[in-house]
Amino acid sequence: MSEISEEEAARHRAKMEKRKAVQDAEVAQKSVEKGLLIVHTGAGKGKSTAAFGLALRVLGHGGRVGVVQFIKGAWHSAERDALKTFGDRVEWHAMGEGFTWETQDLARDIAAAGRAWEKARELMADESIGLVILDELNIALRYDYLPVEDVVAVLAARRVGLHVVVTGRNAKPALIETADLVTEMSLVKHHFKAGVKAQKGIEF
Amino acid sequence: MSEISEEEAARHRAKMEKRKAVQDAEVAQKSVEKGLLIVHTGAGKGKSTAAFGLALRVLGHGGRVGVVQFIKGAWHSAERDALKTFGDRVEWHAMGEGFTWETQDLARDIAAAGRAWEKARELMADESIGLVILDELNIALRYDYLPVEDVVAVLAARRVGLHVVVTGRNAKPALIETADLVTEMSLVKHHFKAGVKAQKGIEF
Repeated sequence: MSEISEEEAARHRAKMEKRKAVQDAEVAQKSVEKGLLIVHTGAGKGKSTAAFGLALRVLGHGGRVGVVQFIKGAWHSAERDALKTFGDRVEWHAMGEGFTWETQDLARDIAAAGRAWEKARELMADESIGLVILDELNIALRYDYLPVEDVVAVLAARRVGLHVVVTGRNAKPALIETADLVTEMSLVKHHFKAGVKAQKGIEF
Repeated sequence: MSEISEEEAARHRAKMEKRKAVQDAEVAQKSVEKGLLIVHTGAGKGKSTAAFGLALRVLGHGGRVGVVQFIKGAWHSAERDALKTFGDRVEWHAMGEGFTWETQDLARDIAAAGRAWEKARELMADESIGLVILDELNIALRYDYLPVEDVVAVLAARRVGLHVVVTGRNAKPALIETADLVTEMSLVKHHFKAGVKAQKGIEF
């Protein structure tokens, strides 16, 4: 790198001082403590992956985590294998029966979603759990396998201090309305377009 | 839920059969096997968190993971604590000196970025490692703490089979151009706006 002039260094310092003042003021304004309802949606990658990353954060604080997968069923899951390292601090329930384009059976999908939602309510009621991940719940809601008003009402009435993450594309407006934090993952560029196949450790 | 008519079930089945055919055809087209260069950018949450989620996936497959944090330094990190559970299968190096608006010292930031990049090259050369996470590298590139052409050239020339994830907002066009997979995380809704403060297990 080239030498930094004193002028340049001073300009940088002034800019960063200003930014720090803005940041400090923003942080000072926040006062409410509560468990968050978080939604990861959009057509891009990283919705479930970021939810499992949050699980790591909660586990790092000594907490317990519950996972209900609404679409994925008996599939092998590398994240699940990895989280087994944490023993009974992670409760993982893969309750789906595969993607709907695999099963092609509407009644079976609705029944599976109902069972998954019962398990989700059970985990949300368990006071030893700090974070519940409802993986691909948005898909079950999108196809009306579950009534969105009932689901949103239960999520809104969750106990204080419980964080819930809902993943899946096409999040319903009623869920977004109720959520505290909504992130949309969008695809800017994808290797599938270049003919690269699904990669172990990344796609599965 | 209400009863499903036979007609409705048949319509659903036909739609899903069509979707499955499209999916199968897409998967069959992909043939290239390679390690991916992945970028998580955008102003939303989940960029680093999704990278740590990918670490879980690689660990679940029995692989090793390297992490270099370009901005975060001595901070306590719950993800790091959690990943300690995997022992020497995770190599974590927090090489930053805090955000630039904290340090306000340009020369120090450039020196720290240079050291972090040396460590990154070392991890990328280590054949026992399957995934290297370059956390907040985009920030170091954005402020020109590192020359983007050099960094992109090294990333493009990584060994076959190595996955690299680069995180941070404002990814440079040259990096996006070279990457295999780019996801933009955008903020749809944030609890800070409602006066809720940073939450343990979620923000830190």
